[in-house]
Amino acid sequence: MYVPAKVKLVEVGPRDGLQNEPQPVATAVKIGLIDRLAAAGLRFIEVGSFVSKRWVPQMADTAAVLSGIARKPDARYAVLTPNRQGFAEARVSGADEVSVFAAASESFSQRNINCGIDVSLDRLSEVCTAAAAAGVPVRGYVSCALGCPYEGKVPAARVADVASRLYRIGCYEISLGDTIGVGTPSQARAMVEAVAAVVPIDRLAVHFHDTYGQALANLVAVLDLGVAVVDSAVAGLGGCPYAKGATGNVATEDVLYMLDGLGVETGVAMAPLLEAGTYICQALGREPASRVARALAARESASRAEGASQP
Amino acid sequence: MYVPAKVKLVEVGPRDGLQNEPQPVATAVKIGLIDRLAAAGLRFIEVGSFVSKRWVPQMADTAAVLSGIARKPDARYAVLTPNRQGFAEARVSGADEVSVFAAASESFSQRNINCGIDVSLDRLSEVCTAAAAAGVPVRGYVSCALGCPYEGKVPAARVADVASRLYRIGCYEISLGDTIGVGTPSQARAMVEAVAAVVPIDRLAVHFHDTYGQALANLVAVLDLGVAVVDSAVAGLGGCPYAKGATGNVATEDVLYMLDGLGVETGVAMAPLLEAGTYICQALGREPASRVARALAARESASRAEGASQP
Repeated sequence: MYVPAKVKLVEVGPRDGLQNEPQPVATAVKIGLIDRLAAAGLRFIEVGSFVSKRWVPQMADTAAVLSGIARKPDARYAVLTPNRQGFAEARVSGADEVSVFAAASESFSQRNINCGIDVSLDRLSEVCTAAAAAGVPVRGYVSCALGCPYEGKVPAARVADVASRLYRIGCYEISLGDTIGVGTPSQARAMVEAVAAVVPIDRLAVHFHDTYGQALANLVAVLDLGVAVVDSAVAGLGGCPYAKGATGNVATEDVLYMLDGLGVETGVAMAPLLEAGTYICQALGREPASRVARALAARESASRAEGASQP
Repeated sequence: MYVPAKVKLVEVGPRDGLQNEPQPVATAVKIGLIDRLAAAGLRFIEVGSFVSKRWVPQMADTAAVLSGIARKPDARYAVLTPNRQGFAEARVSGADEVSVFAAASESFSQRNINCGIDVSLDRLSEVCTAAAAAGVPVRGYVSCALGCPYEGKVPAARVADVASRLYRIGCYEISLGDTIGVGTPSQARAMVEAVAAVVPIDRLAVHFHDTYGQALANLVAVLDLGVAVVDSAVAGLGGCPYAKGATGNVATEDVLYMLDGLGVETGVAMAPLLEAGTYICQALGREPASRVARALAARESASRAEGASQP
């Protein structure tokens, strides 16, 4: 079983997680979360997006978030930008990096952003051109890489096609997203193998959701291929808005626990990461979806209870 | 990535799960659960144990459970028996198979069963001798195979030693238990490799707890070695009594979802398995710990809501 010596963790909780909250989270809380994530050692943090405020009011304060955080000089703070207007706002707000997304499923693209894959890639190409001129790195997401809520299975060849087009228009890294968390290990592996045939594997990231509990199993299967960039969200933020009870992004704590166990270097420390998760979960009034966070909290409260009963 | 063509699922929910409930579950509910599990296609079900009724009142009705279930002729109903007295009760009650357990950690053995590993193996040897004379198959568990709550890391060589002793005294199958769910994939793999050097791999099972969310990832890592017997508990029953909030056995639904995705044959069907999980969770008044059960329930309720809003 091969594992890379180092893995780059990309924290997407403040964006992919909090955009799914029914009520927008206060700007100060977002800032508190992002600063805690950076303090835990995370060096790639997606902090928000410049998208329609009408459609995604949860991200309307992204400029204020960017101006409020205490920037670590060696960290990159990224924002999602769907088009040139979003990119212009990202520039003004001083984001270090932008990300763009395209779907591997035509139906998902139509329903999610009201246009087909080809049209969306044309728009993203404009963002990439503007970003290249400004010297801003662009990261590309492929959504529905292991399944689509409308089409079901998505052929790996289609994922590879969209990924290679994102790479050709200038994305330095392509993040392959199991948006609805349905994939299983051999499927995840076959999909990554198909993409790695057209995009260098050191340009690939995986972005798994843990809806069906498969995210870490899928991760093991693709680390073995050499994938060394992993997206995750602290406390497993990001429940699927149309699927109550379903969990969201794979929890950063759970990924870190596994990578620590595998001896993989990440630069991220568990204790301050857990604090970041506790902070946001208290603000949201809920338990973390991270099993590691729950288990460690339970262990700590048990040992406190034991300590209290000692003389 | 290798996966076996078939996997034998051993359902431990009625025993390893329900023994951890604060209040004993009604006999009729246990019977209802076991019959539903058998209806879902599970053919190896651990239904209870003949242990001290004072220490484990949750299992005091095991004889009544065995006499109340509607036996499938091709299913094996097993019980845990710690000693010859337990074995004698198991015989009278008509269990098809018995299981015994030893710890890979001396401290755990002392604290859990009040004797060291050597003494416990002597006792189990008596059970095996009696079982062999009666033609009853014996399954052996090794607990703390990936970590001990008192000792921390447990050397793989120690696990291999206990496993080989259980094999030599007559256990036809050795189930390697990550009792506290702390292991990660390369550790799980190394442990199984060490055991497989002294016990044939087709005699090995894995018994993972999902406390830290690592169970499926660990499973992928050991399926690749050829392990083809997996213990699990419907709905992820079996929270750890001293760790509130920590989850228990890996959920049968989550294992099945992954194995189905990997194209592995199990003979178990998801829909009736989910019904079994819903049945016991309703009786216990709680949500299933299985992510698959939660996600599928959420999807179903979302599609019902959508259907209701259609004309």
